[in-house]
Amino acid sequence: MRSFFKVKTAKEVLEFLRTVQPLGTESVYITDALNRILASDIVSSEDIPGFQRSTVDGYALGAKDTFGASENLPTPFAIVGEVKMGRKPNFDLNRGECALISTGGMLPKGADAVLMVEYSQKVEDTVVEISRPVSPLENVILSDDDVKKGQVILQKGTRLRPQDLGILAGLGVSTVAVFCKPKAAIISTGEEIVDVTQTPKPGQVRDINTYTLGGLCTQLGVEPIYLGLAGDRFEQLKVLFEKALSQADVILLSGGSSVGAKDLTLDLFLSFADVELMAHGVSISPGKPTIIARKGNKTLWGLPGHPVSAMVIFDVFLRYLFGRLSGLSDPAAFHRPTVEAELDRNIESASGREDYIRVRLSHEDGRLVAKPILGKSGLISTMVEADGIIRIDMNTEGLYQGDRVTVRLF
Amino acid sequence: MRSFFKVKTAKEVLEFLRTVQPLGTESVYITDALNRILASDIVSSEDIPGFQRSTVDGYALGAKDTFGASENLPTPFAIVGEVKMGRKPNFDLNRGECALISTGGMLPKGADAVLMVEYSQKVEDTVVEISRPVSPLENVILSDDDVKKGQVILQKGTRLRPQDLGILAGLGVSTVAVFCKPKAAIISTGEEIVDVTQTPKPGQVRDINTYTLGGLCTQLGVEPIYLGLAGDRFEQLKVLFEKALSQADVILLSGGSSVGAKDLTLDLFLSFADVELMAHGVSISPGKPTIIARKGNKTLWGLPGHPVSAMVIFDVFLRYLFGRLSGLSDPAAFHRPTVEAELDRNIESASGREDYIRVRLSHEDGRLVAKPILGKSGLISTMVEADGIIRIDMNTEGLYQGDRVTVRLF
Repeated sequence: MRSFFKVKTAKEVLEFLRTVQPLGTESVYITDALNRILASDIVSSEDIPGFQRSTVDGYALGAKDTFGASENLPTPFAIVGEVKMGRKPNFDLNRGECALISTGGMLPKGADAVLMVEYSQKVEDTVVEISRPVSPLENVILSDDDVKKGQVILQKGTRLRPQDLGILAGLGVSTVAVFCKPKAAIISTGEEIVDVTQTPKPGQVRDINTYTLGGLCTQLGVEPIYLGLAGDRFEQLKVLFEKALSQADVILLSGGSSVGAKDLTLDLFLSFADVELMAHGVSISPGKPTIIARKGNKTLWGLPGHPVSAMVIFDVFLRYLFGRLSGLSDPAAFHRPTVEAELDRNIESASGREDYIRVRLSHEDGRLVAKPILGKSGLISTMVEADGIIRIDMNTEGLYQGDRVTVRLF
Repeated sequence: MRSFFKVKTAKEVLEFLRTVQPLGTESVYITDALNRILASDIVSSEDIPGFQRSTVDGYALGAKDTFGASENLPTPFAIVGEVKMGRKPNFDLNRGECALISTGGMLPKGADAVLMVEYSQKVEDTVVEISRPVSPLENVILSDDDVKKGQVILQKGTRLRPQDLGILAGLGVSTVAVFCKPKAAIISTGEEIVDVTQTPKPGQVRDINTYTLGGLCTQLGVEPIYLGLAGDRFEQLKVLFEKALSQADVILLSGGSSVGAKDLTLDLFLSFADVELMAHGVSISPGKPTIIARKGNKTLWGLPGHPVSAMVIFDVFLRYLFGRLSGLSDPAAFHRPTVEAELDRNIESASGREDYIRVRLSHEDGRLVAKPILGKSGLISTMVEADGIIRIDMNTEGLYQGDRVTVRLF
């Protein structure tokens, strides 16, 4: 296994990640359920609104009694009551009778339409003249117009949006079964790395990957577990890694991209029982020196130490993986939003690998233009400057100035 | 004031909201700073990485000593040491000398380039032959390549992304000054409304707006304060509203769209000292029966009771308002992502008001097609069915089948 040549294409890695299973489920209160993924279909147990409602302020009445009414020849109606909001009317309507009703009120028996108050003229306390006819069901919501009993309202695997919470509330679903949030343990390795609160000595730099990776996790609703720095000593790393395996579903070890550091990561992964190596190098740039292994349903990642490379690997693979673990039925929904833009210069790309190019967007003469940022992958400032990233396919040798490109937005 | 005709256009309301001032500031730890808005410019206090670093595994050396090296005529170098990761090398290089270095290591004095290990052949323990020349600074990151001391790294009003947290960490900024999160109190009114945990009697419906509005707030990083149901009694409402004013920056009262309910909201708002009425009705659909008032820097909203109308008003006005309160320098950044699509049928629209149309998106023959959903604004199911919303301008009388439309995505 150790010596096996395991450089994989992005497609091969994604195929492997497709075999990862969604996590368990839990119940959450509806106000905590935004962006969570439904663990089962929601089937309506009742009609909504459950009764015939008025959508306007006016008079509930029988539509057939209004036929022929006009401004020249208004039809008189007897006002026999007023519908109280939130109550079932305690009267019925007979022919030629009507009742005052407000928006949202329940139609009394005998009414099948509501005339807007604007088309009426009260002539006595209990008599109103109406100046136009209404059609049956005009200005009325039927008792099952919003939701029908037995209907599948929301499907398992849906990410809950504000309006989805609204319909759940309407149905009386105050707690909802969702997939558990994935947990990602984050460890930075490398003898040269010091904590954000420390002043680096010559040769040292502060930890950046912990914070970029933690932010990316948080953005996706994944819980980051910050395990800190592990240096380069195997035994120290092993202790931290055991902790990570016991707490998290995904372990993100980012560290030096040197051969020595990568060997250490590989040794570490293979020192645990039942670990299967999936990739030792991936054919994408930046991000090639990535190690991926699996232990049961947990995945272990040896990410590049360069911040840009680690972020690209997260974008290409970990967004998809967290979609799978979260139970999202359409993992495409975990991708970043995109825009189409026009490339402002030629870019070369080696065939046989996917290239990811940071770009800055600007509007020029009404066109959206993408300008490549070609700094080294060790420079986090290039990601700060960028608005998004474009992908150059494995089988493409480059892109030309003026080409339409799809930009994944940060 | 009371009787003054105050139906406003969307543009007028947005102009009023532009006068709202950003909230105060607070310090947060960097791992809690994602999506928060910077309260001041971040100026670098140091160069990053702060020393010359290698970007590869290989030999640090003087580039000029390598000129003329080739496969046929390799140049020998004396290996005088190895750079330890995270340490300043304790030796200098003289002409014809080199040192082993790993990715991220600090170049010793006397070196200005790194030769990749692939282009070398060790001939003795302390002698290596190199088979190609390197240019000055090849495979080297300069000490200020990533960040220069004194540079403005991130500007006040920026929403922090994962990479922004990364650069802050690199600079040693472990706590960061951000604008406070806006707080929004949410109250539902209406005698017909019952809580999500209750079974409605005939004529009653469960509260939906609390959950859709709370979800929209949470999506924007606004803290919702759920104050529950207030019925239709003025005194009960006033007590709850006083609580809201003492706790929140924005008060969202959603309630019946009947004339009586709107009168109650207006009476309530005007019963407080120093309240200025900004709008009594807005010329957008759905959402017309909206009341907007101001008390100092706090804004009071009487939102329509219909869930769709309340969500549209949130989208058009409250996203912008929360952007202002959050100190976001570019409030456009608070808008939803959009896509361009082709309308699949004609839509009429009354001139003199903005219309918002829910649409469902689908791919047909490679085109993205937007299908309008024309259900009543009382039906939350129409929002659940929708993928986004399109706007029809005030001065447009409608759109035609085949028109390109911009869809704001949910």
